[in-house]
Amino acid sequence: MTKMIFYYAPMTVSVAPHIALEEAGVTYESRKLDFSITEQRSKQYLSINPKGRVPSLVTDNGIITETPAILAYIAQAYPEANLAPLQDPYRFAKMQEINVYLAATVHVNHAHKIRGTRWVDDDAAISAMRAKVPQTMHESFELIENEMFVGPWVLGEDFSVSDCYLFCISLWLKGDKVDIEDFPRINEHNKRMRERASVVKVLELHGIA
Amino acid sequence: MTKMIFYYAPMTVSVAPHIALEEAGVTYESRKLDFSITEQRSKQYLSINPKGRVPSLVTDNGIITETPAILAYIAQAYPEANLAPLQDPYRFAKMQEINVYLAATVHVNHAHKIRGTRWVDDDAAISAMRAKVPQTMHESFELIENEMFVGPWVLGEDFSVSDCYLFCISLWLKGDKVDIEDFPRINEHNKRMRERASVVKVLELHGIA
Repeated sequence: MTKMIFYYAPMTVSVAPHIALEEAGVTYESRKLDFSITEQRSKQYLSINPKGRVPSLVTDNGIITETPAILAYIAQAYPEANLAPLQDPYRFAKMQEINVYLAATVHVNHAHKIRGTRWVDDDAAISAMRAKVPQTMHESFELIENEMFVGPWVLGEDFSVSDCYLFCISLWLKGDKVDIEDFPRINEHNKRMRERASVVKVLELHGIA
Repeated sequence: MTKMIFYYAPMTVSVAPHIALEEAGVTYESRKLDFSITEQRSKQYLSINPKGRVPSLVTDNGIITETPAILAYIAQAYPEANLAPLQDPYRFAKMQEINVYLAATVHVNHAHKIRGTRWVDDDAAISAMRAKVPQTMHESFELIENEMFVGPWVLGEDFSVSDCYLFCISLWLKGDKVDIEDFPRINEHNKRMRERASVVKVLELHGIA
């Protein structure tokens, strides 16, 4: 197997699979895209990912995009790393449930702050979207804290790729004007994650303090 | 194993796992929620799914929500139905990739038509969102037609849960003012799906002609 290539952009959702790759202990090459010059829309990168987004994982078989798909892939392709409940379809589904909630609801809420032009064209509507982000992000994290998070890790006693994903998105709370201390269990989780070597390395790569 | 219970609402995204349950040939009970009286927000249903959305699948082990999670669960829990490439992490990831794109991008685009209050409070912004839906849905389906759809089924020679999901969302195109005939391969797929007994049964249950 040749070395996988992981395309990412600093401080984006690519933090999540980046941590998972480190946790899996695989050999891979990281390639950084510069969003300030819209490199994700360059002809070269669109040939990797026609959606013009990060992350993308180039494997021997082909290219995988979409964070929950990449996370489940890393867990399945490197089962010895124990990053998902691979033997139990129900528990695997519960992992996917939170991953998809993070992708399709929480990340989408957050995206209304700086990616509003995906859904509207006029400036007033973009401002209206931005104004509601603190509320929608707070509501989403309240639901995770009260209804989804098992503890001490997201799914319970075992660390999984869902921990990488929740941690990544929790990094956005401050910028979204949400106080992580409103969610004591997620706040503790955030601190626990920062003690892992994988997280220390990836935060440094992404320039996150 | 006791009979699974599937909560759905007519013509929503629950069409996708409903078809998958039929394809898997499992015994389950369907329970319809009435969105016209906001039954998805009733105290009884919130105890099933605190997100107040459909679908929800009640299994012996517990309750699963989020369409891509439910679809992968059905495929994994009933492997004899051959509804996903379960033996190959890369091909499984490609299935998940399109399922997550449908959930986190295409369904979200569509939701800006009638669920705008999720992201904004004022009426002008809601109208601005609604106005862009035909464009965003057209762009998403163009990408699926040109970059993702393999044919004759979504993933290639083998039918999978991704076929249930793409078919379900393609039913929304007309209401979103997008002509499915702009996408010849997806249009053919739609017709091919309607020949399946599972689809005939579910469309009738959902009151779709």
